[in-house]
Amino acid sequence: MQAEPQAFDRVLSSMCTEPHPAAREAAERFLATNPGDPATYPTVADLEEEAVSRLGDLVGLDDPTGYVASGGTEANIQAVRIARDRTGRESANVVMPESGHFSFQKAADVLGIELRIVPVDDELRADLEAVRECVDENTALVVGVAGTTEYGRVDPIPELGEIAREVDALLHVDAAWGGFVLPFTDHEWRFDHAPVDTMTVDPHKMGQAAVPAGGLLVREESLLDTLAIDTPYLESTSQATLTGTRSGAGVASAVAALRELWPDGYRTQYVRSQRNAEWLADAFAQRGYDVVDPELPLVAVSIPERLFYDLREEGWRISRTGSGELRIVCMPHVTRAMLESFVADVDRLAKPASAAVATND
Amino acid sequence: MQAEPQAFDRVLSSMCTEPHPAAREAAERFLATNPGDPATYPTVADLEEEAVSRLGDLVGLDDPTGYVASGGTEANIQAVRIARDRTGRESANVVMPESGHFSFQKAADVLGIELRIVPVDDELRADLEAVRECVDENTALVVGVAGTTEYGRVDPIPELGEIAREVDALLHVDAAWGGFVLPFTDHEWRFDHAPVDTMTVDPHKMGQAAVPAGGLLVREESLLDTLAIDTPYLESTSQATLTGTRSGAGVASAVAALRELWPDGYRTQYVRSQRNAEWLADAFAQRGYDVVDPELPLVAVSIPERLFYDLREEGWRISRTGSGELRIVCMPHVTRAMLESFVADVDRLAKPASAAVATND
Repeated sequence: MQAEPQAFDRVLSSMCTEPHPAAREAAERFLATNPGDPATYPTVADLEEEAVSRLGDLVGLDDPTGYVASGGTEANIQAVRIARDRTGRESANVVMPESGHFSFQKAADVLGIELRIVPVDDELRADLEAVRECVDENTALVVGVAGTTEYGRVDPIPELGEIAREVDALLHVDAAWGGFVLPFTDHEWRFDHAPVDTMTVDPHKMGQAAVPAGGLLVREESLLDTLAIDTPYLESTSQATLTGTRSGAGVASAVAALRELWPDGYRTQYVRSQRNAEWLADAFAQRGYDVVDPELPLVAVSIPERLFYDLREEGWRISRTGSGELRIVCMPHVTRAMLESFVADVDRLAKPASAAVATND
Repeated sequence: MQAEPQAFDRVLSSMCTEPHPAAREAAERFLATNPGDPATYPTVADLEEEAVSRLGDLVGLDDPTGYVASGGTEANIQAVRIARDRTGRESANVVMPESGHFSFQKAADVLGIELRIVPVDDELRADLEAVRECVDENTALVVGVAGTTEYGRVDPIPELGEIAREVDALLHVDAAWGGFVLPFTDHEWRFDHAPVDTMTVDPHKMGQAAVPAGGLLVREESLLDTLAIDTPYLESTSQATLTGTRSGAGVASAVAALRELWPDGYRTQYVRSQRNAEWLADAFAQRGYDVVDPELPLVAVSIPERLFYDLREEGWRISRTGSGELRIVCMPHVTRAMLESFVADVDRLAKPASAAVATND
């Protein structure tokens, strides 16, 4: 095959990364297995149990249940599906801050549920008063985000859980991206300590596993069981996943990464990524750009639209928030040298920031 | 990592197989790409277009639209979702023969649609009279199967299409497993010639690509567009897939397999698999077992339950139909030598068939 995957040396927009070498090796070895058919592929089925158990260690949940999903979108859809089916109400709704991922819009469309979107506060976190006013007796689920896609912010999870409990709704935490860095921050809640019912935490993002390795964790096994469909022709008798055949590569790769990196390797990586984010934020601030403080290793900064496209022309893979800020995700493959090179391109291509803003905005 | 994926030398129940070497090589090279974010990963996005175009060649559909899904389950769910959204009716229903895959039950649960299951005829194909009686003005979709999971049978697709048209429903063909062998059989309908609206055809089954590489093909681009969700923070502006991040390995692997094998390699493989299936069916028939004639390379045979479990004890990965028959899928990795060894175990472990049936039933 002639086509080559582009190198990661200019990818600043992705929440995926180069798999850890051990994760890549495991993915390649388990490429031809299917955890969706555990009786036929027992080794990878055992590995999936190990993956879920290790993800439980990561988020602080003893005796977790769940599975390795195709990604955060599937995990989020499944969390909404669990909540919908638990209420059994036609008119069930889900309450989510506007910082929630677009996969919840997809979940609402697919599952036929009402999605109620509430504002965030000045810190870009779920506005608790707004959430409280929005929930009602038909609320099946409250969503909190731990590491928002656009700004890397962490919602007040314990407080969201209390609001959910008051209306007998479940609490889902979307930590698809943030899950692998949170344990090293000063957020004191863990899955066990907060009233979290379901959580998305993706090995193939900050966990350095190969795609596809999303993670869905569920506190009560019975909640996951409600999704199970009979599988007549398989020796396994039921299936709670959204997909059928699944990638053994993702599962094996997640286990390999977790064995290799939890906790010390992930801690080291978090420190490195966070320092890079802070360095980049400072660099932009010094140049007069308006920067959103990087709570987690993700930098959002207002730059002129033309500069954004000029930087793309240079081959940088960058993206923008819904409000138009440049958004840089400091994934493990993003080195300080890459960021220095990027900032040098900013300096070369930008007019002085204040002038540029004046001309372009 | 100590655990090893089991070898394929005793796997007789799987609809997946060892990837073709070219497909494996491509999967390994594209392991760290994400076609769910085409602006960040443009090479694999181009490959996905090529995959869809080549799948169009395979099934006989000019100018196809679609995508490489996580597998047949996602493709089937999406086909039902397209049909549901097209009607916009709360009370929409899907009509499917009982030979349809359990993923449609999953689709019905997820999408909140009524699934109407009709009987098959004596040849284990959709009973047209039953389908005709079952459809009504709320029917959004009629499902036909081209290569049923349990018996490898092909429903009368053109006739099902006519029935669908009469009630303004769509026709979906589930050729997840059969799609890569049908072109070499004497079934004269192709996607272009029959009123097929959507089709599932999975490269990671008979197409010899690596998991995850399912395929969804759609005749009218507008039908797929109805599924699109806005993706604010990606440079790509919308996403019609069910999952978000997706495996570049699956996409690259599908293209590599299709480039390498279509059409001659697939034809050779079909002939070999079909001969193996007929050889195995004959071997069982000669021993007095009741065999379902293998229309495609899949053999179903009634054997005593104890013999089934004794064979599993020998390490054979085998499964059964809902009615209890042993079910052997003659995938590319299944050789004549494997089948000879399997039949030798049957001979060694079985009482004479007639006696065994008499004692066990």
